[in-house]
Amino acid sequence: MENHFVAETTFRVRYVETDAQGFVHHKNYLVYFEEARSAYLRQRGHSYAEFEQAGYFLVVAEANLRYIKALKFDQQVTIRTWITELKSRALTYQYEVWADDQLCATGTTRHLCITREGQIATIPAFWRTLVQS
Amino acid sequence: MENHFVAETTFRVRYVETDAQGFVHHKNYLVYFEEARSAYLRQRGHSYAEFEQAGYFLVVAEANLRYIKALKFDQQVTIRTWITELKSRALTYQYEVWADDQLCATGTTRHLCITREGQIATIPAFWRTLVQS
Amino acid sequence: MENHFVAETTFRVRYVETDAQGFVHHKNYLVYFEEARSAYLRQRGHSYAEFEQAGYFLVVAEANLRYIKALKFDQQVTIRTWITELKSRALTYQYEVWADDQLCATGTTRHLCITREGQIATIPAFWRTLVQS
Amino acid sequence: MENHFVAETTFRVRYVETDAQGFVHHKNYLVYFEEARSAYLRQRGHSYAEFEQAGYFLVVAEANLRYIKALKFDQQVTIRTWITELKSRALTYQYEVWADDQLCATGTTRHLCITREGQIATIPAFWRTLVQS
Repeated sequence: MENHFVAETTFRVRYVETDAQGFVHHKNYLVYFEEARSAYLRQRGHSYAEFEQAGYFLVVAEANLRYIKALKFDQQVTIRTWITELKSRALTYQYEVWADDQLCATGTTRHLCITREGQIATIPAFWRTLVQS
Repeated sequence: MENHFVAETTFRVRYVETDAQGFVHHKNYLVYFEEARSAYLRQRGHSYAEFEQAGYFLVVAEANLRYIKALKFDQQVTIRTWITELKSRALTYQYEVWADDQLCATGTTRHLCITREGQIATIPAFWRTLVQS
Repeated sequence: MENHFVAETTFRVRYVETDAQGFVHHKNYLVYFEEARSAYLRQRGHSYAEFEQAGYFLVVAEANLRYIKALKFDQQVTIRTWITELKSRALTYQYEVWADDQLCATGTTRHLCITREGQIATIPAFWRTLVQS
Repeated sequence: MENHFVAETTFRVRYVETDAQGFVHHKNYLVYFEEARSAYLRQRGHSYAEFEQAGYFLVVAEANLRYIKALKFDQQVTIRTWITELKSRALTYQYEVWADDQLCATGTTRHLCITREGQIATIPAFWRTLVQS
Protein backbone atom coordinates (compact mmCIF):
# COMPACT_ATOMS: atom_id res chain seq x y z
CA MET A 1 0.00 0.00 0.00
CA GLU A 2 1.17 3.49 -0.83
CA ASN A 3 -0.31 5.16 2.21
CA HIS A 4 1.18 4.34 5.54
CA PHE A 5 -0.81 6.06 8.23
CA VAL A 6 0.45 4.88 11.61
CA ALA A 7 -1.84 5.25 14.62
CA GLU A 8 -0.28 5.46 18.07
CA THR A 9 -2.20 4.80 21.24
CA THR A 10 -0.80 4.96 24.75
CA PHE A 11 -2.22 3.52 27.98
CA ARG A 12 -1.08 1.95 31.23
CA VAL A 13 -1.08 -1.77 32.00
CA ARG A 14 -4.04 -2.65 34.23
CA TYR A 15 -3.50 -4.87 37.28
CA VAL A 16 -6.12 -7.29 36.02
CA GLU A 17 -4.01 -7.87 32.89
CA THR A 18 -1.17 -9.49 34.89
CA ASP A 19 -0.97 -13.14 35.89
CA ALA A 20 0.82 -15.12 38.62
CA GLN A 21 4.13 -14.83 36.74
CA GLY A 22 3.95 -11.11 37.60
CA PHE A 23 3.69 -9.88 34.00
CA VAL A 24 0.94 -9.20 31.47
CA HIS A 25 -0.78 -12.42 30.38
CA HIS A 26 -0.07 -13.15 26.71
CA LYS A 27 -3.76 -13.10 25.71
CA ASN A 28 -3.97 -9.39 26.56
CA TYR A 29 -1.82 -8.40 23.60
CA LEU A 30 -4.82 -9.33 21.43
CA VAL A 31 -6.86 -6.92 23.58
CA TYR A 32 -4.22 -4.23 23.10
CA PHE A 33 -4.25 -4.82 19.34
CA GLU A 34 -8.05 -4.45 19.32
CA GLU A 35 -7.73 -1.19 21.24
CA ALA A 36 -5.14 -0.08 18.69
CA ARG A 37 -7.57 -0.78 15.83
CA SER A 38 -10.23 1.27 17.61
CA ALA A 39 -7.71 4.09 18.01
CA TYR A 40 -6.72 3.80 14.36
CA LEU A 41 -10.28 4.51 13.18
CA ARG A 42 -10.84 7.18 15.84
CA GLN A 43 -7.69 9.01 14.72
CA ARG A 44 -9.14 9.02 11.21
CA GLY A 45 -12.33 10.62 12.51
CA HIS A 46 -14.55 7.57 12.79
CA SER A 47 -15.35 4.64 15.06
CA TYR A 48 -15.66 0.90 14.70
CA ALA A 49 -19.08 1.29 16.37
CA GLU A 50 -20.27 3.15 13.22
CA PHE A 51 -18.98 0.30 11.09
CA GLU A 52 -21.18 -2.18 12.97
CA GLN A 53 -24.13 0.25 12.93
CA ALA A 54 -23.79 0.22 9.13
CA GLY A 55 -24.40 -3.53 9.27
CA TYR A 56 -20.84 -4.83 8.91
CA PHE A 57 -18.46 -6.65 11.18
CA LEU A 58 -14.75 -7.28 10.96
CA VAL A 59 -14.03 -10.78 12.21
CA VAL A 60 -10.54 -12.01 13.01
CA ALA A 61 -9.39 -14.71 10.61
CA GLU A 62 -5.78 -14.92 11.72
CA ALA A 63 -3.50 -13.59 14.45
CA ASN A 64 0.24 -13.86 14.87
CA LEU A 65 2.17 -12.63 17.89
CA ARG A 66 5.85 -12.44 18.84
CA TYR A 67 6.57 -11.70 22.50
CA ILE A 68 9.93 -10.02 23.04
CA LYS A 69 9.92 -8.41 26.49
CA ALA A 70 7.37 -8.89 29.26
CA LEU A 71 5.18 -5.95 30.40
CA LYS A 72 4.45 -5.06 34.05
CA PHE A 73 1.58 -3.49 35.93
CA ASP A 74 1.36 0.31 35.58
CA GLN A 75 3.89 0.41 32.74
CA GLN A 76 3.08 2.93 30.04
CA VAL A 77 2.62 1.13 26.75
CA THR A 78 2.39 2.55 23.24
CA ILE A 79 0.95 0.56 20.35
CA ARG A 80 1.89 1.59 16.81
CA THR A 81 -0.60 0.26 14.22
CA TRP A 82 -0.86 0.38 10.47
CA ILE A 83 -2.57 -1.49 7.65
CA THR A 84 -0.30 -3.68 5.55
CA GLU A 85 -2.84 -5.28 3.26
CA LEU A 86 -6.19 -4.05 1.96
CA LYS A 87 -8.17 -6.40 -0.26
CA SER A 88 -11.79 -6.15 -1.34
CA ARG A 89 -13.05 -8.31 1.51
CA ALA A 90 -10.09 -8.52 3.91
CA LEU A 91 -7.44 -6.39 5.54
CA THR A 92 -4.37 -6.93 7.68
CA TYR A 93 -3.15 -4.78 10.55
CA GLN A 94 0.39 -4.80 11.88
CA TYR A 95 1.37 -3.80 15.42
CA GLU A 96 4.37 -2.85 17.49
CA VAL A 97 4.15 -2.74 21.27
CA TRP A 98 6.60 -0.29 22.86
CA ALA A 99 7.38 0.42 26.53
CA ASP A 100 10.37 2.30 28.00
CA ASP A 101 11.80 2.77 24.50
CA GLN A 102 11.94 -0.96 23.92
CA LEU A 103 10.07 -3.01 21.37
CA CYS A 104 8.21 -5.51 23.59
CA ALA A 105 6.06 -7.36 21.05
CA THR A 106 4.95 -7.39 17.43
CA GLY A 107 1.97 -8.88 15.72
CA THR A 108 -0.44 -8.99 12.83
CA THR A 109 -4.16 -9.68 12.62
CA ARG A 110 -6.06 -10.46 9.44
CA HIS A 111 -9.75 -9.57 9.26
CA LEU A 112 -12.67 -10.49 7.04
CA CYS A 113 -15.62 -8.20 6.43
CA ILE A 114 -18.94 -9.93 7.07
CA THR A 115 -22.59 -8.90 7.17
CA ARG A 116 -24.94 -9.28 10.12
CA GLU A 117 -26.01 -12.62 8.59
CA GLY A 118 -22.44 -13.87 8.59
CA GLN A 119 -21.81 -13.63 4.83
CA ILE A 120 -18.39 -12.49 3.68
CA ALA A 121 -18.83 -9.08 2.05
CA THR A 122 -16.93 -6.38 0.20
CA ILE A 123 -15.61 -3.68 2.53
CA PRO A 124 -17.88 -0.65 1.84
CA ALA A 125 -16.24 2.04 -0.31
CA PHE A 126 -16.54 4.67 2.43
CA TRP A 127 -14.37 2.64 4.82
CA ARG A 128 -11.96 1.54 2.13
CA THR A 129 -11.35 5.14 1.16
CA LEU A 130 -11.04 6.14 4.80
CA VAL A 131 -8.17 3.78 5.52
CA GLN A 132 -6.53 4.36 2.13
CA SER A 133 -6.36 8.14 2.20
CA MET B 1 -38.76 -20.68 49.19
CA GLU B 2 -39.74 -24.19 50.15
CA ASN B 3 -37.55 -25.94 47.61
CA HIS B 4 -33.86 -25.78 48.10
CA PHE B 5 -32.18 -27.46 45.18
CA VAL B 6 -28.43 -26.91 45.46
CA ALA B 7 -26.32 -27.26 42.33
CA GLU B 8 -22.65 -28.15 42.72
CA THR B 9 -20.11 -27.56 40.00
CA THR B 10 -16.40 -28.37 40.22
CA PHE B 11 -13.53 -27.12 38.05
CA ARG B 12 -9.87 -26.16 38.31
CA VAL B 13 -8.54 -22.60 38.54
CA ARG B 14 -7.14 -21.51 35.16
CA TYR B 15 -3.74 -19.80 35.02
CA VAL B 16 -5.29 -16.84 33.21
CA GLU B 17 -7.53 -16.25 36.23
CA THR B 18 -4.58 -15.39 38.50
CA ASP B 19 -2.97 -11.97 38.82
CA ALA B 20 0.44 -10.66 39.92
CA GLN B 21 -0.42 -11.26 43.58
CA GLY B 22 -0.28 -14.97 42.70
CA PHE B 23 -3.96 -15.69 43.42
CA VAL B 24 -7.25 -15.60 41.51
CA HIS B 25 -8.22 -12.02 40.61
CA HIS B 26 -11.37 -10.97 42.49
CA LYS B 27 -13.38 -10.30 39.32
CA ASN B 28 -13.25 -14.00 38.40
CA TYR B 29 -15.59 -14.97 41.22
CA LEU B 30 -18.34 -13.32 39.17
CA VAL B 31 -17.29 -15.59 36.29
CA TYR B 32 -17.43 -18.61 38.61
CA PHE B 33 -20.89 -17.56 39.79
CA GLU B 34 -22.06 -17.30 36.18
CA GLU B 35 -20.70 -20.78 35.50
CA ALA B 36 -22.53 -21.99 38.60
CA ARG B 37 -25.82 -20.55 37.28
CA SER B 38 -25.25 -22.34 33.95
CA ALA B 39 -24.60 -25.57 35.88
CA TYR B 40 -27.73 -25.00 37.98
CA LEU B 41 -29.97 -24.97 34.91
CA ARG B 42 -28.06 -27.81 33.23
CA GLN B 43 -28.52 -30.00 36.33
CA ARG B 44 -32.24 -29.35 36.04
CA GLY B 45 -32.20 -30.54 32.45
CA HIS B 46 -32.07 -27.22 30.62
CA SER B 47 -29.68 -24.51 29.52
CA TYR B 48 -29.50 -20.74 29.79
CA ALA B 49 -28.97 -20.77 25.99
CA GLU B 50 -32.58 -22.01 25.61
CA PHE B 51 -33.76 -19.17 27.83
CA GLU B 52 -32.20 -16.62 25.47
CA GLN B 53 -33.49 -18.51 22.41
CA ALA B 54 -36.97 -18.08 23.90
CA GLY B 55 -36.41 -14.31 23.73
CA TYR B 56 -35.51 -13.59 27.35
CA PHE B 57 -32.38 -12.47 29.13
CA LEU B 58 -31.42 -12.43 32.78
CA VAL B 59 -29.46 -9.28 33.49
CA VAL B 60 -27.49 -8.75 36.67
CA ALA B 61 -28.99 -6.00 38.84
CA GLU B 62 -26.88 -6.52 41.93
CA ALA B 63 -23.86 -8.52 43.07
CA ASN B 64 -22.35 -8.92 46.52
CA LEU B 65 -19.15 -10.81 47.25
CA ARG B 66 -17.22 -11.72 50.41
CA TYR B 67 -13.69 -12.99 49.87
CA ILE B 68 -12.49 -15.25 52.68
CA LYS B 69 -9.50 -17.25 51.42
CA ALA B 70 -7.53 -16.71 48.22
CA LEU B 71 -7.56 -19.34 45.45
CA LYS B 72 -4.47 -20.54 43.54
CA PHE B 73 -3.77 -21.83 40.05
CA ASP B 74 -4.80 -25.47 39.49
CA GLN B 75 -6.77 -25.65 42.76
CA GLN B 76 -9.97 -27.66 42.51
CA VAL B 77 -12.91 -25.42 43.30
CA THR B 78 -16.52 -26.35 43.99
CA ILE B 79 -19.33 -23.81 43.77
CA ARG B 80 -22.59 -24.55 45.61
CA THR B 81 -25.51 -22.52 44.23
CA TRP B 82 -29.15 -22.13 45.12
CA ILE B 83 -32.01 -19.69 44.61
CA THR B 84 -32.96 -17.67 47.67
CA GLU B 85 -35.61 -15.41 46.16
CA LEU B 86 -38.00 -15.91 43.25
CA LYS B 87 -40.26 -13.02 42.34
CA SER B 88 -42.38 -12.54 39.22
CA ARG B 89 -39.69 -10.56 37.42
CA ALA B 90 -36.54 -11.13 39.49
CA LEU B 91 -34.59 -13.84 41.24
CA THR B 92 -31.59 -14.07 43.55
CA TYR B 93 -28.89 -16.74 43.55
CA GLN B 94 -26.61 -17.45 46.50
CA TYR B 95 -23.16 -19.01 46.19
CA GLU B 96 -20.50 -20.69 48.28
CA VAL B 97 -17.00 -21.22 46.90
CA TRP B 98 -15.20 -24.21 48.42
CA ALA B 99 -11.63 -25.48 47.96
CA ASP B 100 -9.71 -28.00 50.09
CA ASP B 101 -12.68 -28.27 52.48
CA GLN B 102 -12.57 -24.57 53.25
CA LEU B 103 -15.17 -21.94 52.50
CA CYS B 104 -13.20 -19.46 50.36
CA ALA B 105 -15.91 -16.98 49.33
CA THR B 106 -19.63 -16.34 49.40
CA GLY B 107 -21.87 -14.18 47.28
CA THR B 108 -25.27 -13.32 45.92
CA THR B 109 -26.41 -12.01 42.55
CA ARG B 110 -29.83 -10.55 41.82
CA HIS B 111 -31.22 -10.79 38.30
CA LEU B 112 -34.00 -9.16 36.33
CA CYS B 113 -35.80 -10.85 33.46
CA ILE B 114 -35.86 -8.68 30.33
CA THR B 115 -37.00 -9.11 26.74
CA ARG B 116 -34.84 -8.72 23.65
CA GLU B 117 -36.04 -5.10 23.51
CA GLY B 118 -34.79 -4.45 27.04
CA GLN B 119 -38.21 -4.32 28.74
CA ILE B 120 -38.50 -5.86 32.21
CA ALA B 121 -40.72 -8.94 31.87
CA THR B 122 -42.35 -11.67 33.92
CA ILE B 123 -40.22 -14.80 34.13
CA PRO B 124 -42.01 -17.31 31.84
CA ALA B 125 -44.03 -19.95 33.71
CA PHE B 126 -41.93 -22.80 32.28
CA TRP B 127 -38.74 -21.46 33.83
CA ARG B 128 -40.41 -20.44 37.06
CA THR B 129 -41.74 -23.98 37.51
CA LEU B 130 -38.37 -25.44 36.57
CA VAL B 131 -36.49 -23.69 39.36
CA GLN B 132 -39.32 -24.10 41.87
CA SER B 133 -39.84 -27.84 41.56
CA MET C 1 -13.90 10.97 57.17
CA GLU C 2 -13.47 14.70 56.98
CA ASN C 3 -11.59 14.73 53.70
CA HIS C 4 -13.46 13.80 50.62
CA PHE C 5 -11.08 13.76 47.71
CA VAL C 6 -12.91 12.42 44.67
CA ALA C 7 -10.87 11.01 41.80
CA GLU C 8 -12.38 10.99 38.33
CA THR C 9 -11.11 8.81 35.54
CA THR C 10 -12.51 8.63 32.03
CA PHE C 11 -12.03 5.96 29.36
CA ARG C 12 -13.91 4.24 26.55
CA VAL C 13 -15.53 0.81 26.76
CA ARG C 14 -13.37 -1.78 25.01
CA TYR C 15 -14.98 -4.26 22.61
CA VAL C 16 -13.56 -7.16 24.58
CA GLU C 17 -15.53 -5.98 27.62
CA THR C 18 -18.88 -6.66 25.96
CA ASP C 19 -20.68 -10.00 25.90
CA ALA C 20 -23.30 -11.65 23.68
CA GLN C 21 -26.07 -9.51 25.22
CA GLY C 22 -24.38 -6.58 23.46
CA PHE C 23 -23.40 -4.71 26.63
CA VAL C 24 -20.49 -4.63 29.06
CA HIS C 25 -20.25 -7.91 31.01
CA HIS C 26 -20.98 -7.31 34.70
CA LYS C 27 -17.58 -8.57 35.87
CA ASN C 28 -15.86 -5.66 34.12
CA TYR C 29 -17.20 -3.12 36.59
CA LEU C 30 -14.76 -4.65 39.10
CA VAL C 31 -12.02 -3.99 36.53
CA TYR C 32 -13.23 -0.40 36.15
CA PHE C 33 -13.23 0.03 39.93
CA GLU C 34 -9.64 -1.26 40.08
CA GLU C 35 -8.67 1.22 37.37
CA ALA C 36 -10.39 3.94 39.41
CA ARG C 37 -8.32 3.03 42.50
CA SER C 38 -5.14 3.23 40.42
CA ALA C 39 -6.25 6.64 39.15
CA TYR C 40 -7.06 7.75 42.70
CA LEU C 41 -3.47 7.16 43.87
CA ARG C 42 -1.99 8.56 40.65
CA GLN C 43 -3.99 11.76 41.08
CA ARG C 44 -2.47 12.08 44.55
CA GLY C 45 1.01 11.77 43.06
CA HIS C 46 1.70 8.11 43.71
CA SER C 47 1.05 4.63 42.32
CA TYR C 48 -0.23 1.35 43.65
CA ALA C 49 2.93 -0.19 42.13
CA GLU C 50 4.97 1.71 44.77
CA PHE C 51 2.72 0.33 47.48
CA GLU C 52 3.56 -3.23 46.41
CA GLN C 53 7.24 -2.37 46.00
CA ALA C 54 7.16 -1.28 49.67
CA GLY C 55 6.10 -4.84 50.53
CA TYR C 56 2.37 -4.37 50.99
CA PHE C 57 -0.70 -5.51 49.12
CA LEU C 58 -4.32 -4.43 49.27
CA VAL C 59 -6.53 -7.48 48.93
CA VAL C 60 -10.25 -7.27 48.25
CA ALA C 61 -12.31 -8.52 51.21
CA GLU C 62 -15.71 -7.43 49.98
CA ALA C 63 -17.36 -6.01 46.87
CA ASN C 64 -20.90 -4.77 46.31
CA LEU C 65 -22.27 -3.65 42.98
CA ARG C 66 -25.56 -2.16 41.78
CA TYR C 67 -26.12 -2.14 38.02
CA ILE C 68 -28.48 0.61 36.87
CA LYS C 69 -27.98 1.11 33.14
CA ALA C 70 -26.02 -1.08 30.72
CA LEU C 71 -22.88 0.24 29.01
CA LYS C 72 -22.05 -0.22 25.31
CA PHE C 73 -18.90 -0.55 23.24
CA ASP C 74 -17.07 2.73 22.63
CA GLN C 75 -19.15 4.62 25.19
CA GLN C 76 -17.18 7.15 27.21
CA VAL C 77 -17.33 6.24 30.87
CA THR C 78 -16.32 8.27 33.91
CA ILE C 79 -15.71 6.66 37.28
CA ARG C 80 -15.91 8.85 40.41
CA THR C 81 -14.09 7.30 43.38
CA TRP C 82 -13.58 8.25 47.00
CA ILE C 83 -12.66 6.62 50.30
CA THR C 84 -15.54 6.22 52.75
CA GLU C 85 -13.78 4.34 55.53
CA LEU C 86 -10.16 4.31 56.64
CA LYS C 87 -9.24 1.97 59.50
CA SER C 88 -5.80 0.95 60.70
CA ARG C 89 -5.75 -2.20 58.56
CA ALA C 90 -8.63 -1.74 56.13
CA LEU C 91 -10.23 0.82 53.87
CA THR C 92 -13.35 1.12 51.75
CA TYR C 93 -13.70 2.78 48.36
CA GLN C 94 -16.99 3.94 46.89
CA TYR C 95 -17.66 4.31 43.16
CA GLU C 96 -20.07 5.88 40.74
CA VAL C 97 -20.05 4.92 37.06
CA TRP C 98 -21.31 7.68 34.75
CA ALA C 99 -21.93 7.71 30.99
CA ASP C 100 -23.90 10.23 28.91
CA ASP C 101 -24.80 12.15 32.09
CA GLN C 102 -26.49 9.11 33.59
CA LEU C 103 -25.51 7.17 36.69
CA CYS C 104 -25.03 3.65 35.30
CA ALA C 105 -23.73 1.77 38.34
CA THR C 106 -22.54 2.21 41.90
CA GLY C 107 -20.36 0.07 44.12
CA THR C 108 -18.08 -0.31 47.09
CA THR C 109 -14.99 -2.44 47.67
CA ARG C 110 -13.42 -3.12 51.06
CA HIS C 111 -9.70 -3.87 51.21
CA LEU C 112 -7.34 -5.34 53.77
CA CYS C 113 -3.65 -4.43 53.95
CA ILE C 114 -1.43 -7.53 53.96
CA THR C 115 2.30 -8.22 53.83
CA ARG C 116 4.09 -10.28 51.18
CA GLU C 117 3.74 -13.25 53.58
CA GLY C 118 -0.03 -12.82 53.70
CA GLN C 119 -0.26 -11.40 57.24
CA ILE C 120 -2.81 -8.64 57.87
CA ALA C 121 -0.86 -5.46 58.60
CA THR C 122 -1.33 -1.84 59.58
CA ILE C 123 -1.51 0.46 56.56
CA PRO C 124 1.86 2.31 56.57
CA ALA C 125 1.67 5.91 57.89
CA PHE C 126 2.87 7.35 54.58
CA TRP C 127 -0.07 5.91 52.65
CA ARG C 128 -2.57 6.65 55.40
CA THR C 129 -1.52 10.29 55.39
CA LEU C 130 -1.61 10.39 51.59
CA VAL C 131 -5.25 9.36 51.34
CA GLN C 132 -6.30 11.42 54.38
CA SER C 133 -4.82 14.76 53.37
CA MET D 1 9.47 -36.02 17.18
CA GLU D 2 8.78 -39.72 17.22
CA ASN D 3 6.19 -39.64 19.97
CA HIS D 4 2.90 -38.06 19.24
CA PHE D 5 0.85 -38.08 22.40
CA VAL D 6 -2.33 -36.09 21.77
CA ALA D 7 -4.20 -34.70 24.76
CA GLU D 8 -7.90 -34.00 24.40
CA THR D 9 -9.81 -31.73 26.71
CA THR D 10 -13.50 -30.89 26.49
CA PHE D 11 -15.44 -28.05 28.09
CA ARG D 12 -18.34 -25.72 27.38
CA VAL D 13 -18.05 -22.12 26.19
CA ARG D 14 -18.66 -19.73 29.09
CA TYR D 15 -20.98 -16.76 28.60
CA VAL D 16 -18.22 -14.40 29.69
CA GLU D 17 -16.11 -15.59 26.75
CA THR D 18 -18.55 -14.16 24.17
CA ASP D 19 -18.56 -10.58 22.90
CA ALA D 20 -21.14 -8.27 21.31
CA GLN D 21 -20.82 -10.10 17.97
CA GLY D 22 -22.49 -13.02 19.76
CA PHE D 23 -19.51 -15.42 19.47
CA VAL D 24 -16.40 -16.26 21.47
CA HIS D 25 -13.95 -13.33 21.49
CA HIS D 26 -10.77 -14.24 19.59
CA LYS D 27 -8.49 -13.71 22.59
CA ASN D 28 -10.13 -16.63 24.41
CA TYR D 29 -8.59 -19.19 22.07
CA LEU D 30 -5.28 -18.40 23.78
CA VAL D 31 -7.04 -19.18 27.08
CA TYR D 32 -8.32 -22.46 25.62
CA PHE D 33 -4.82 -23.33 24.41
CA GLU D 34 -3.45 -22.67 27.91
CA GLU D 35 -6.13 -24.94 29.37
CA ALA D 36 -5.16 -27.57 26.79
CA ARG D 37 -1.50 -27.39 27.90
CA SER D 38 -2.59 -27.84 31.52
CA ALA D 39 -4.67 -30.85 30.45
CA TYR D 40 -1.72 -32.24 28.46
CA LEU D 41 0.50 -32.39 31.56
CA ARG D 42 -2.34 -33.61 33.78
CA GLN D 43 -3.03 -36.47 31.38
CA ARG D 44 0.61 -37.45 31.71
CA GLY D 45 0.26 -37.52 35.49
CA HIS D 46 1.67 -34.13 36.39
CA SER D 47 0.74 -30.48 36.62
CA TYR D 48 2.18 -27.20 35.40
CA ALA D 49 1.89 -26.03 39.04
CA GLU D 50 4.65 -28.54 39.92
CA PHE D 51 6.82 -27.15 37.13
CA GLU D 52 6.62 -23.67 38.67
CA GLN D 53 7.15 -25.08 42.17
CA ALA D 54 10.40 -26.58 40.85
CA GLY D 55 11.50 -23.02 40.00
CA TYR D 56 10.79 -22.93 36.29
CA PHE D 57 8.33 -21.09 34.09
CA LEU D 58 7.26 -21.56 30.50
CA VAL D 59 6.81 -18.16 28.88
CA VAL D 60 5.09 -17.67 25.56
CA ALA D 61 7.47 -16.47 22.85
CA GLU D 62 5.15 -16.82 19.89
CA ALA D 63 1.52 -17.57 19.12
CA ASN D 64 -0.22 -18.14 15.81
CA LEU D 65 -3.95 -18.60 15.40
CA ARG D 66 -6.26 -19.38 12.49
CA TYR D 67 -9.97 -18.84 13.09
CA ILE D 68 -12.17 -21.00 10.89
CA LYS D 69 -15.65 -21.14 12.45
CA ALA D 70 -17.00 -19.02 15.30
CA LEU D 71 -17.95 -20.62 18.64
CA LYS D 72 -21.12 -19.86 20.61
CA PHE D 73 -22.11 -19.80 24.27
CA ASP D 74 -22.71 -23.26 25.78
CA GLN D 75 -21.19 -25.08 22.80
CA GLN D 76 -19.14 -28.12 23.73
CA VAL D 77 -15.57 -27.64 22.57
CA THR D 78 -12.75 -30.17 22.35
CA ILE D 79 -9.13 -29.10 22.08
CA ARG D 80 -6.60 -31.58 20.68
CA THR D 81 -3.02 -30.72 21.67
CA TRP D 82 0.38 -32.17 20.92
CA ILE D 83 4.03 -31.14 20.96
CA THR D 84 5.59 -30.55 17.55
CA GLU D 85 9.03 -29.34 18.59
CA LEU D 86 11.11 -30.05 21.67
CA LYS D 87 14.46 -28.27 21.94
CA SER D 88 16.73 -27.97 24.95
CA ARG D 89 15.24 -24.64 26.03
CA ALA D 90 12.07 -24.33 23.99
CA LEU D 91 9.05 -26.29 22.87
CA THR D 92 6.10 -25.81 20.53
CA TYR D 93 2.53 -26.97 21.04
CA GLN D 94 0.01 -27.37 18.26
CA TYR D 95 -3.77 -27.18 18.73
CA GLU D 96 -7.00 -28.04 17.00
CA VAL D 97 -10.30 -26.65 18.26
CA TRP D 98 -13.29 -28.87 17.45
CA ALA D 99 -17.02 -28.33 18.01
CA ASP D 100 -19.97 -30.23 16.48
CA ASP D 101 -17.54 -32.35 14.43
CA GLN D 102 -16.11 -29.28 12.73
CA LEU D 103 -12.60 -27.90 12.93
CA CYS D 104 -13.19 -24.37 14.25
CA ALA D 105 -9.63 -23.11 14.78
CA THR D 106 -5.99 -24.17 14.77
CA GLY D 107 -2.94 -22.71 16.39
CA THR D 108 0.59 -23.06 17.69
CA THR D 109 2.37 -21.56 20.67
CA ARG D 110 6.13 -21.56 21.20
CA HIS D 111 7.47 -21.45 24.75
CA LEU D 112 10.79 -20.72 26.38
CA CYS D 113 11.86 -22.23 29.70
CA ILE D 114 13.02 -19.57 32.16
CA THR D 115 14.07 -19.51 35.81
CA ARG D 116 12.43 -17.46 38.55
CA GLU D 117 15.06 -14.79 37.84
CA GLY D 118 14.04 -14.60 34.20
CA GLN D 119 17.07 -16.38 32.72
CA ILE D 120 16.49 -18.73 29.79
CA ALA D 121 17.21 -22.26 31.03
CA THR D 122 17.40 -25.84 29.84
CA ILE D 123 14.12 -27.70 30.32
CA PRO D 124 14.81 -30.06 33.28
CA ALA D 125 15.40 -33.70 32.24
CA PHE D 126 12.40 -34.91 34.25
CA TRP D 127 9.98 -32.80 32.22
CA ARG D 128 11.73 -33.44 28.92
CA THR D 129 11.40 -37.19 29.48
CA LEU D 130 7.79 -36.78 30.56
CA VAL D 131 6.68 -35.14 27.33
CA GLN D 132 8.90 -37.37 25.15
CA SER D 133 7.78 -40.74 26.46
